[in-house]
Amino acid sequence: MGPHGAQSAAARLDDLDTPAVLIDLDRVEANVAKAQAYADRHRLALRPHVKTHKLPTLAHRQVREGAVGITAQKIGEALVMAHAGLDDILLSYPIVGPRKVEPLARLARATRRLAVMLDNETALATVAAAAVAAGKVIDVVIEFESGNRRTGVLEPADARALARRVVASEGVAIRGLGTHPLGAGAGDFVREARALLAADGIEAPVFSGGGTPTMWRAHEHAGLTELRVGTYVYHDRATVGAGAATLDDCALHVLATVVSVPERGRAVIDAGSKTLTSDRIAEAYGAGYGHVLEAPGAVIASLSEEHGVLDLSGCSTRLRVGDRVRIVPNHACPVTNLDDQVVAHRGDRVAWVAPVWARGATR
Amino acid sequence: MGPHGAQSAAARLDDLDTPAVLIDLDRVEANVAKAQAYADRHRLALRPHVKTHKLPTLAHRQVREGAVGITAQKIGEALVMAHAGLDDILLSYPIVGPRKVEPLARLARATRRLAVMLDNETALATVAAAAVAAGKVIDVVIEFESGNRRTGVLEPADARALARRVVASEGVAIRGLGTHPLGAGAGDFVREARALLAADGIEAPVFSGGGTPTMWRAHEHAGLTELRVGTYVYHDRATVGAGAATLDDCALHVLATVVSVPERGRAVIDAGSKTLTSDRIAEAYGAGYGHVLEAPGAVIASLSEEHGVLDLSGCSTRLRVGDRVRIVPNHACPVTNLDDQVVAHRGDRVAWVAPVWARGATR
Repeated sequence: MGPHGAQSAAARLDDLDTPAVLIDLDRVEANVAKAQAYADRHRLALRPHVKTHKLPTLAHRQVREGAVGITAQKIGEALVMAHAGLDDILLSYPIVGPRKVEPLARLARATRRLAVMLDNETALATVAAAAVAAGKVIDVVIEFESGNRRTGVLEPADARALARRVVASEGVAIRGLGTHPLGAGAGDFVREARALLAADGIEAPVFSGGGTPTMWRAHEHAGLTELRVGTYVYHDRATVGAGAATLDDCALHVLATVVSVPERGRAVIDAGSKTLTSDRIAEAYGAGYGHVLEAPGAVIASLSEEHGVLDLSGCSTRLRVGDRVRIVPNHACPVTNLDDQVVAHRGDRVAWVAPVWARGATR
Repeated sequence: MGPHGAQSAAARLDDLDTPAVLIDLDRVEANVAKAQAYADRHRLALRPHVKTHKLPTLAHRQVREGAVGITAQKIGEALVMAHAGLDDILLSYPIVGPRKVEPLARLARATRRLAVMLDNETALATVAAAAVAAGKVIDVVIEFESGNRRTGVLEPADARALARRVVASEGVAIRGLGTHPLGAGAGDFVREARALLAADGIEAPVFSGGGTPTMWRAHEHAGLTELRVGTYVYHDRATVGAGAATLDDCALHVLATVVSVPERGRAVIDAGSKTLTSDRIAEAYGAGYGHVLEAPGAVIASLSEEHGVLDLSGCSTRLRVGDRVRIVPNHACPVTNLDDQVVAHRGDRVAWVAPVWARGATR
């Protein structure tokens, strides 16, 4: 929508209006390089999930560094990427229903290689119809359960039944099996399912799994071929809490201004749930809604839409009205879904300001 | 940003792609009329908060029905409304710092009448500088604490000190005192503060308070002159829980599709935290992240960005992949901040599809 406080005139971070979403490019580049080196070392195909940054320019950087393609969650998000030149996309989400056929067909036409992860026959019928409409093959990755209790078939026999339907359907082909995150039994599931499929003469060469919190141990899952991770590009308080990164790896910060200090021990910033989101993290990972770099002892104790209320009782830093602070959010991905633009910087200098084209793309 | 799955071709709700945000116009009109009748009956000026709908067309309807003007939270939100012809705006948020002066001056130039609620001298200096830059008077409403522990001066003497600074500043004038929500001591605070101000020869005619959950008892606060409420236009699970409305008054629904049913007792819908938000409500108001109209016994037990996981163990309704459901969200306001568009309807017919121009306006 409208350019709500366009930041494009700012040359330095100090010139920016707040709240603003800052992207530290040096850290992004280091995070991308480190993940690619890990994937290369373990002969894993890296397929980064763009839901975290929603920016074609960063997706292109990930591919240039060696990623095999990208992962996206919804058709709208994938279409933005396809039109920006990302031509190998895995949709890691079941696409269901007649109203999705034409949008998915358009995505198929806009990509060189497209796959959809799914766990049921209705989704398969939708994908097959889109493939036929597009006149192109869409690959299928059968999603299986490995501990997340979200989507995914429960038993290897269910995977076989679905694989048989794929083989019997026009326009689609089996690419492999996938799960999220990589639960303890994932390798066993794939071994058993592949054996069942092989008995039918069906190959499922790809074993795709992901999740940033446990990404550095992904290679321990026997048979894994493809790593899907998103948050690692920025990291956040949750992935730091999980031990996948340190605070110094965090590349996304929310810049906010203290707008009120009604009493000692309480300060209010101009970043609330419309900027930081209401996402919580495990208590062991930290209290409240984010980590304030300039006041590490502060707890962002409550949020309303535009207010963040800081409890400074355990904090030696004094905050005054007008002070500016940078916050590492609990969860980076939904933060980039909220602001229409992000500000990329190197040190104190603004590098570029980009519209977040794929924000809001839930369809 | 981009038209992510534009819904404009749909004639009936059944034609819509999901997830979609639906607005029931008959219910909106009833909610607007009922609030206006209440305000009129108690001689309160109604100043609806547009943060809930973020739609100029609904703001105009509220004003046509008798509202004195509107309330907005941030300059960006207010600018959208001003350019859409809403010319009497109260910004119920402290505007702080030199980078806000020019944006606020622009808002002052774009409005006939503008006020800012604030609780500190730095905000006052910002507002005064903007008023001088705009060559117009900006009114000040002094915010006080009445139980919310967010922003607001704590003592009537603090209000007097701030009022004296207003009187001494160029470009600004005292309009009154305000708080949110209306805590038990609000009336006493205003009486005491007005007495102190009167001793200085300062009048503060407006006493502004708000909050939908307790709105029907607002008239019990002696001396209240202005009612600021937002959520009443749509209502949601929180205001129903608070007793301010019934489920049948709820005018905003999220339309979602069941995309996976991995096992009996669990279904997954295509509306996650990017559609419903992670906002929780008091346990007594209901479990999970929303109320599913077609399966009232279902609990939306967990959300990830694009997945809503339904626990159907206490539910007699059977859901199948492809089924479509409507959800009353916990909190309507942040939901309208997420999708670029909302679909207004009467019964099953789509009335219009509007871009949410003021979504994302956190600056």
